[in-house]
Amino acid sequence: MIPNLVTVMDRQVLDLEKTLIDSTSMVERWFRMAWQDYTPPFYCSVDLRNAGFKLAPVDTNLFPGGFNNLAADMLPLAVQAAMSAIEKYCPEAKNLLLIPENHTRNQYYLDSIRRLMEILRQTGLDIRLGFLSEQVANPLPVTFSDGTKVVVEPVKRINNGRRVGLDDFNPCTILLNNDLSAGTPEVLKNVYEQSLLPPLHAGWTVRRKSNHFAAYDDVVRRFSRMLGIDPWLVNPYFSRCTDVNFEEKEGGEALAAQVNAVLTKVRRKYREYGIKEKPFVIIKADAGTYGMGIMTVSDAKEVLNLNRRQRNKMSVIKDGQVVREVLVQEGVHSLERVNDAVAEPVVYMIDRYVVGGFYRVNASRDINENLNAPGAQFVPLPFSQQHTLPDVKAEPGKSEPNRYYMYGVIARLALLAAAVELEKTDPDMQ
Amino acid sequence: MIPNLVTVMDRQVLDLEKTLIDSTSMVERWFRMAWQDYTPPFYCSVDLRNAGFKLAPVDTNLFPGGFNNLAADMLPLAVQAAMSAIEKYCPEAKNLLLIPENHTRNQYYLDSIRRLMEILRQTGLDIRLGFLSEQVANPLPVTFSDGTKVVVEPVKRINNGRRVGLDDFNPCTILLNNDLSAGTPEVLKNVYEQSLLPPLHAGWTVRRKSNHFAAYDDVVRRFSRMLGIDPWLVNPYFSRCTDVNFEEKEGGEALAAQVNAVLTKVRRKYREYGIKEKPFVIIKADAGTYGMGIMTVSDAKEVLNLNRRQRNKMSVIKDGQVVREVLVQEGVHSLERVNDAVAEPVVYMIDRYVVGGFYRVNASRDINENLNAPGAQFVPLPFSQQHTLPDVKAEPGKSEPNRYYMYGVIARLALLAAAVELEKTDPDMQ
Repeated sequence: MIPNLVTVMDRQVLDLEKTLIDSTSMVERWFRMAWQDYTPPFYCSVDLRNAGFKLAPVDTNLFPGGFNNLAADMLPLAVQAAMSAIEKYCPEAKNLLLIPENHTRNQYYLDSIRRLMEILRQTGLDIRLGFLSEQVANPLPVTFSDGTKVVVEPVKRINNGRRVGLDDFNPCTILLNNDLSAGTPEVLKNVYEQSLLPPLHAGWTVRRKSNHFAAYDDVVRRFSRMLGIDPWLVNPYFSRCTDVNFEEKEGGEALAAQVNAVLTKVRRKYREYGIKEKPFVIIKADAGTYGMGIMTVSDAKEVLNLNRRQRNKMSVIKDGQVVREVLVQEGVHSLERVNDAVAEPVVYMIDRYVVGGFYRVNASRDINENLNAPGAQFVPLPFSQQHTLPDVKAEPGKSEPNRYYMYGVIARLALLAAAVELEKTDPDMQ
Repeated sequence: MIPNLVTVMDRQVLDLEKTLIDSTSMVERWFRMAWQDYTPPFYCSVDLRNAGFKLAPVDTNLFPGGFNNLAADMLPLAVQAAMSAIEKYCPEAKNLLLIPENHTRNQYYLDSIRRLMEILRQTGLDIRLGFLSEQVANPLPVTFSDGTKVVVEPVKRINNGRRVGLDDFNPCTILLNNDLSAGTPEVLKNVYEQSLLPPLHAGWTVRRKSNHFAAYDDVVRRFSRMLGIDPWLVNPYFSRCTDVNFEEKEGGEALAAQVNAVLTKVRRKYREYGIKEKPFVIIKADAGTYGMGIMTVSDAKEVLNLNRRQRNKMSVIKDGQVVREVLVQEGVHSLERVNDAVAEPVVYMIDRYVVGGFYRVNASRDINENLNAPGAQFVPLPFSQQHTLPDVKAEPGKSEPNRYYMYGVIARLALLAAAVELEKTDPDMQ
């Protein structure tokens, strides 16, 4: 059961697929050279949207969950990529401390953590789990869905405060799977002797989507120039709006102006390509995650007339963070379907390698809506036949491996943007 | 259709499997540290034999063919590993010159070359094929079994003789898939500006199996000490004999003495473990390949009474090389079967990663015979389910991924031995 585009893909994305397949050696060399200049984040997942006339990343997650949704037969690829990463950061590494979110009762999330532990163990590491929450002072037993039990222990400073670890566990590498929405914890500050991955400024307390998409603009400009394609085909327009206060109804006019500016640019492109769809934008918290604080708007006036429920929804996101800065992002329709449900591809990367992906499928959402909605039912569907090489002879749009290759290229552009973004926003480099 | 051991595996190999699965993180870390000290060959295939009571490599090939026998769904692993290798040797690489054997009419070999080209193309390289044979002065068209055509061109010195390339092709990396049995060609000597992989002294003009297995002895000694296992369980005894001349019946006494010495050591081990099988040795050319110049002997007296046919067979090997030095290697029975045919696993590695494997199956050979016999029918069978992670909870001997993991570990010990061997035999380091 593979998602198929309900409509035949338009010429633009078919052309893009053909260009990427025909130029594989150039594309791969371009990435190889780029990774000489930038260090990829340890891991990353990218949400894509395929509108038929356009294919673009809409979200780049530096603390990916969902490893349990990858096909099991892709795991050796993940192990190999993780080996390559570990070797770079700390070749002598023996112990790795993994810091998950504080969701000990979310079985899906725990399954992802278990899968991640399996992958990391195969790279030659002893893995222990550490909790950040200051409410948890004692070890906490956790049971995975396969019945195995582990104990999550409070993270503390060890070795006279020089290092981060557990009571009897001194890691070489600390891997965050906690996005730090609740703030940068004291226990992780000023870590100089260990590799802390990703760095603290990748956490949502510091990170901003607008910085990411600004870096993506640059990356795509260079990539598109090499291939001679219109960068818009793989890049959503965006704008940033500060001093918004949904609860107090402040900043609405400025936001409406930004929405209008983005919609105007999108309409111009739609006319250029003869696209009949209705343009829309997604407004989302510049520092938000978990599909919270997101709304779809197709007319600037809508933001001036939000009802209480809508304003509440946009005001507060994960871990009670108040929204003051938003990203206004060109909306990309999703034309992929599983049966009748809207589907969007999510691509997973470790180090600089694509290690798998799946479709996020949400039957209760429309083509212009965010699918990563809390509470909404979603059915992950691992990419199938991704584990074969692209077929240079296939007709565009007919080969699944070729489509997955295209998805992998676009996701890697977002990965590279994340690397650029993290370097530019590194507080130690300012 | 997976080969299954006809007899239940003996305790020794089951214990080995359990030890390796239980100690995965230690084993992988050991390899990670080892690769800090040694550079793996670009690629390598290792022939293993599983006797139930013992599992050992019997041949390590630095110019592997048979890439076409790997399961297609393992190819992304090969691409990823090749990316990692290329990045190490020449990150800016754009062009790679692949030098195959001069077998333009062997369709199986050409299929392997085609597969290798596909893998390398996906890493971001333009690939061209070059011929070494001095008889071929003009470009030679070659047709692959899928109908695609390529032209193989004579390798020459370019850029005032400073570099190796083709008429209009200046490669950064030269990858040999030609084992140089016919001698080290002048055109490849004194290459300083390009990466020549593997190095010339990996060719059979220079390389000696006895050096490889001496390096393997050292590697296995360290590995076995870490795990607390008897190194013999993964290591065949061997001895080297020089000044042998089968044609002239010279050196027979010395060879018989070596055979006897190895058999005596093997008998002692068989008694120690209560093994009832009949010990034997394999005599093979120390620089030979292609399954030529190999014989099975279970009594030292046999080598004193070789008939003319046997002597002819041992005298001359690939490309007319005369045999003067032989390796006397403890024979390892193969207890694996596909239906009734003897099968032996072959594991493929690129850089330091296992990228696949298959069973070599030969219905016309016995359990103590070399299966890589020229002319003999052999059916390659790709490992199945290798693309899942080991199952730490499985009963020893019941999980295919666990058995493949064990094969991969032993093959990587041979890979590491090859790296040590190449460093020790590097003429520039003498």
